[in-house]
Amino acid sequence: MSDVVRVGIAGYGSMGRLHCYSYRAAPMIRPGGVRFEPVIISGRDRRAVAEAAHRYGIEEWTERWETLVERPDIDVVDICTPPGTHAAIAIAAASTGKSVMCEKPLAVTYPDAWAALDAVARSGVRHAVGFNYRHLPAVSLLAEMVAAGDIGEVRLWRGTWLSDEFADPTIPFDWRFEASLGGSTIADLGSHLMDLAEWMVGPVADVVATSATFVTERPDGEATRAVEVDDASAALVRFSSGAQGVLQVARAAPRRPCDFTIEVNGTAGTLVFSYDRLNELWFGDGNDDRRLYGMRRIRVEDPSQPETAGWWPIGQGIGYDASFVNQVAALAEEWDSGRWSPGFDVGARIVRVCSAMERSAAEGRWVSVDEVLGEPAT
Amino acid sequence: MSDVVRVGIAGYGSMGRLHCYSYRAAPMIRPGGVRFEPVIISGRDRRAVAEAAHRYGIEEWTERWETLVERPDIDVVDICTPPGTHAAIAIAAASTGKSVMCEKPLAVTYPDAWAALDAVARSGVRHAVGFNYRHLPAVSLLAEMVAAGDIGEVRLWRGTWLSDEFADPTIPFDWRFEASLGGSTIADLGSHLMDLAEWMVGPVADVVATSATFVTERPDGEATRAVEVDDASAALVRFSSGAQGVLQVARAAPRRPCDFTIEVNGTAGTLVFSYDRLNELWFGDGNDDRRLYGMRRIRVEDPSQPETAGWWPIGQGIGYDASFVNQVAALAEEWDSGRWSPGFDVGARIVRVCSAMERSAAEGRWVSVDEVLGEPAT
Amino acid sequence: MSDVVRVGIAGYGSMGRLHCYSYRAAPMIRPGGVRFEPVIISGRDRRAVAEAAHRYGIEEWTERWETLVERPDIDVVDICTPPGTHAAIAIAAASTGKSVMCEKPLAVTYPDAWAALDAVARSGVRHAVGFNYRHLPAVSLLAEMVAAGDIGEVRLWRGTWLSDEFADPTIPFDWRFEASLGGSTIADLGSHLMDLAEWMVGPVADVVATSATFVTERPDGEATRAVEVDDASAALVRFSSGAQGVLQVARAAPRRPCDFTIEVNGTAGTLVFSYDRLNELWFGDGNDDRRLYGMRRIRVEDPSQPETAGWWPIGQGIGYDASFVNQVAALAEEWDSGRWSPGFDVGARIVRVCSAMERSAAEGRWVSVDEVLGEPAT
Amino acid sequence: MSDVVRVGIAGYGSMGRLHCYSYRAAPMIRPGGVRFEPVIISGRDRRAVAEAAHRYGIEEWTERWETLVERPDIDVVDICTPPGTHAAIAIAAASTGKSVMCEKPLAVTYPDAWAALDAVARSGVRHAVGFNYRHLPAVSLLAEMVAAGDIGEVRLWRGTWLSDEFADPTIPFDWRFEASLGGSTIADLGSHLMDLAEWMVGPVADVVATSATFVTERPDGEATRAVEVDDASAALVRFSSGAQGVLQVARAAPRRPCDFTIEVNGTAGTLVFSYDRLNELWFGDGNDDRRLYGMRRIRVEDPSQPETAGWWPIGQGIGYDASFVNQVAALAEEWDSGRWSPGFDVGARIVRVCSAMERSAAEGRWVSVDEVLGEPAT
Repeated sequence: MSDVVRVGIAGYGSMGRLHCYSYRAAPMIRPGGVRFEPVIISGRDRRAVAEAAHRYGIEEWTERWETLVERPDIDVVDICTPPGTHAAIAIAAASTGKSVMCEKPLAVTYPDAWAALDAVARSGVRHAVGFNYRHLPAVSLLAEMVAAGDIGEVRLWRGTWLSDEFADPTIPFDWRFEASLGGSTIADLGSHLMDLAEWMVGPVADVVATSATFVTERPDGEATRAVEVDDASAALVRFSSGAQGVLQVARAAPRRPCDFTIEVNGTAGTLVFSYDRLNELWFGDGNDDRRLYGMRRIRVEDPSQPETAGWWPIGQGIGYDASFVNQVAALAEEWDSGRWSPGFDVGARIVRVCSAMERSAAEGRWVSVDEVLGEPAT
Repeated sequence: MSDVVRVGIAGYGSMGRLHCYSYRAAPMIRPGGVRFEPVIISGRDRRAVAEAAHRYGIEEWTERWETLVERPDIDVVDICTPPGTHAAIAIAAASTGKSVMCEKPLAVTYPDAWAALDAVARSGVRHAVGFNYRHLPAVSLLAEMVAAGDIGEVRLWRGTWLSDEFADPTIPFDWRFEASLGGSTIADLGSHLMDLAEWMVGPVADVVATSATFVTERPDGEATRAVEVDDASAALVRFSSGAQGVLQVARAAPRRPCDFTIEVNGTAGTLVFSYDRLNELWFGDGNDDRRLYGMRRIRVEDPSQPETAGWWPIGQGIGYDASFVNQVAALAEEWDSGRWSPGFDVGARIVRVCSAMERSAAEGRWVSVDEVLGEPAT
Repeated sequence: MSDVVRVGIAGYGSMGRLHCYSYRAAPMIRPGGVRFEPVIISGRDRRAVAEAAHRYGIEEWTERWETLVERPDIDVVDICTPPGTHAAIAIAAASTGKSVMCEKPLAVTYPDAWAALDAVARSGVRHAVGFNYRHLPAVSLLAEMVAAGDIGEVRLWRGTWLSDEFADPTIPFDWRFEASLGGSTIADLGSHLMDLAEWMVGPVADVVATSATFVTERPDGEATRAVEVDDASAALVRFSSGAQGVLQVARAAPRRPCDFTIEVNGTAGTLVFSYDRLNELWFGDGNDDRRLYGMRRIRVEDPSQPETAGWWPIGQGIGYDASFVNQVAALAEEWDSGRWSPGFDVGARIVRVCSAMERSAAEGRWVSVDEVLGEPAT
Repeated sequence: MSDVVRVGIAGYGSMGRLHCYSYRAAPMIRPGGVRFEPVIISGRDRRAVAEAAHRYGIEEWTERWETLVERPDIDVVDICTPPGTHAAIAIAAASTGKSVMCEKPLAVTYPDAWAALDAVARSGVRHAVGFNYRHLPAVSLLAEMVAAGDIGEVRLWRGTWLSDEFADPTIPFDWRFEASLGGSTIADLGSHLMDLAEWMVGPVADVVATSATFVTERPDGEATRAVEVDDASAALVRFSSGAQGVLQVARAAPRRPCDFTIEVNGTAGTLVFSYDRLNELWFGDGNDDRRLYGMRRIRVEDPSQPETAGWWPIGQGIGYDASFVNQVAALAEEWDSGRWSPGFDVGARIVRVCSAMERSAAEGRWVSVDEVLGEPAT
């Protein structure tokens, strides 16, 4: 029988539910390692958190996230609250020796991210950031093929994330529009893409960005309130390797529900992923027979892929949840090593890259990632 | 707290696992109705069923499916064994008053299917057949739009299911190649498509079919054994309504993992579904502005769809499992009514249609579905 | 300077225009062989044919196709009139020693087709049938790859042609709805597909078909007139090789403008062509690395393909006309050999296959192609 | 009979051939207006230009483009030479009163473009720049729908052009790698996209760009020579309207033959064009029924579109050449007005925008388009 690891989930919203779903599903898909058991969930709205606990089949609930941190029977604190609250919860959890799983972005500012990283590093606990898309089979294979040299040396990288989440100007103001709580669109959507970019291509050296807020005020009760975050941003990226990158993120693109695409062009080939067809990866092999010039549409469901193992027969298709289930499975498999990956080091790094973009957009100039400082001056 | 309904699962293979997965997941997605709890699983291989029980988190296991039928604490028998065994288990379960969920096809012969239907009808238990694809959001919307008249009167229906399951001639003989146990490819793949066809277009009147077995012998230990089922079959179908249908099913199509497509052309429009992109439905509205001539690619993830409700935000995508989770949710919601749908009546009907195709292929002539008899002559 | 070959075109409709377009364009694309010059065009409507001649830049016109046949300065008679008139014009042209290019189908009945073939064979003139889609680069590559064994031995063939040409019931009666003039939908659309099928897979042995006419009467002036042809037909096909085929043709599919698809599954791979993306061919190589499981989307524009040579840089795309321009180029290149391909032998054979389908639909039984007789009993 | 306008073509390469092809084809497709007749063609390689003249069916040829300008019987000089030579030929042609059609980009530097514009403006001749993609039906419909407000106010624009033209490092140095003759990749590919961008969205205010040359030296006879142009560039674009744009152009993307895409997101909808499927336009209507959430794939072949009129029946597909044929047809239709569109004013403007990008890439800062000056200081 697998060892059971007891989890407290902070936040009962869509991420809280999905994490809970994944803890339950993972053993039926990839049964290796420990077994996580969600035992308590927190949220500020008493009635809503109680209802969620019931629905998700979690026995206990609380209005205070501090309870999760304080309870000695909790092994892992899983942070699914708004971004602006991540760092404080993580620091508190680390201080009581809990392992910490934190949704992305790790923080809204780089100093906060730095402090969270510092806290887990000092306390020696396991730490992970929820870059779940790394665990989609097609994205995972993309990264694996880049690393294996299947497209040669990377020259061009491009990532676009289009959603219509903010397209409707009548959506009322909520925490997502508050910079200190929700963070920018660069942080929300861009953090996923920049994590994948650095994972595949290596460190970003410098960036130039521009941001736009098209709907500047939103209804807030009887009044309106000024929106503090961008509807859309774009950036040019120069990687240390000399590769050239382009990023665009937007929550103002009608009939684009959540469409992200990544393309990587190397000296010897091209790889393309489009999330709207998440079980597919396109591979253009530059050394292929000219007669077959084009790209392969890889159906990334063959059990030979690590992130596909344990899933359904090839051709049946997996969904969004599979990325979270695989993420949980990886944490379970890594438990005994005492180290999770990607950790807060990666999480903090990505906050730094995104902060460089935010600064560039504000100042109208190229900004080096190194310019962004987090640690307090000594 | 929802009422708990106790389930015994017969068969621990891929279907057994998927059903178990779905019983666990359904309450987190669509929490209405009763809550099913898998409490025992059966299988003939002692070691394998024990391992499966552990992996799926089911407390008890048994080598005899009869145990599930006999135990008074079991409410539902869920049949996930090879097709040739379905009817006998269903009849036994009905005789002890269990509700019965049976994987498709209900039986390999129409007399067997008729007997199973007769048994559940006489005993008055709930009965359902696992036509899970009805619960895919895009397929469900397709049927709903046909029923709503969005494409007018149906004229043409076409369904194709291509897989490469049997393409490799070195695959050894197993129960799938034995007619009385696995059933034909018409029964295995065609039963899904013909269920969807009759659901959407109404009853089939007559059929003409042809079958081919390309790999006639397969390794069986040191020897070889004659394959008893078809690698591929095709049929022309005339519906009672006057609509014309075409079916093709094959397990001999390389690099077609499990690709099924359905197209329906009506007097006023066209609907197309392709399982390799399972979150999409194509709709060509014949009354649309000529300037926009073409088809809409509907992203069938909007919560306005019943089978989408409770799933992830639009654009994130669901997978194969969602069809089973939705199926469980529907059974849970219908529990109190004492009636499930689609029941054995539908299951038996589809066996009859498939049997007409098998007879046509054998006899080289058009066969009316009415010619196929199941009930014993009185 | 290339030799000039003088062409008389019978019929000024869409086919007449396209043929004329292609005679003009071919030398700029594939300059080999003779140069065809359209010098006269015929048509029964005096005003319309005069206008067409002007627009197409042809110096002479006539109301009588007989003029083309009689004129000693005409080398080629190119037949672009309705199908029911093809054979008579071809026979007349052969009798005066003209080379004959005839649009498909060669005739509406097999006896007529047989007579046309007999006439060209006796007179020894060049003869060709306008199966232009053979000259689309992607279709040509498909056939070439099948012939080269790239997918092994062919097992399954499927062809579907969906159009909405007859979907609107208010379209008035014209020659297309008259069986003896326009021929059936099997003949009109099916002849293309069956030509490609036999070209790729070899001879058809027997067939079973069903036809439906959904709009049975059409406006004809003040009255209505009974439609004599099918709106849609489907057929099962058994090739002599043992391969299984499925055909469906329809002019009753809304928002399907002219969508034909061909898929061929062999023992070692799969090839798929869809005309709505005519510069692409999909190839699933059954021997490919499992990690890359899927199909290649070949961009069939590389100059290494014979039918691509001379066209635009790869990626720019060619259109429908290219199939006709390539067809003309092939006739020009073959001129000196005294033999064209595909000739009336192929044209007559395809009429025979289509006639077998028509007979099967009428008689409700499998029909062997050999049963269809054309030559007069001696 | 249409009036004949006599054309001299400077340059016999791929553009020269395509222009010639289009002059011949246009009257058979869209017969309105004058009829252009190519009567002479120039090129520096005596043997090659003679061969080309023969192949294209042009009676005369010359080694000197000056002949075209000097000959009194020539009405139009059509410039198909390398970009660095465009302005000088255009200025000479204007000086002798010829109408001038010039391939894009109008010039390699903005001062040259300004001088060419000044010359045609002073002389009052017709002038046009070859932005042929405006005449693709799908691109044309995209622009028309933006102008009609079908997607509301434009917020985001993105254009990407990926090719592998320079991907192979063994391609020898030629004029394309020489900045003063071939111009940058921004000029070559970006000029098309920025023309479409300004046509659809209005003027660009400022830009920031980055350029990379990955293959810095290329074989040149026995030696190597330094490449002077970029392999890939990317830019952020701010339109005067407040819309945000992103551009990426590359000739270093393996298995991307010539793939350009344009997406425009407005307040009320989204339009997407991808050149690899050039007969399609995707339209996401933000006001569409939620149940049908998604995008329409418009088959842009309905004769209701001006750029489709005269082409093949819907569904048959047109190719690259159609954009040029339509361009010629438009010039023919506009002839009598004495004015062509888009003219050198547009051509010069686009050189200015591209020059701003080149300057930005060189100087590492945002550059306003207004900063780029062409006219000599007075």
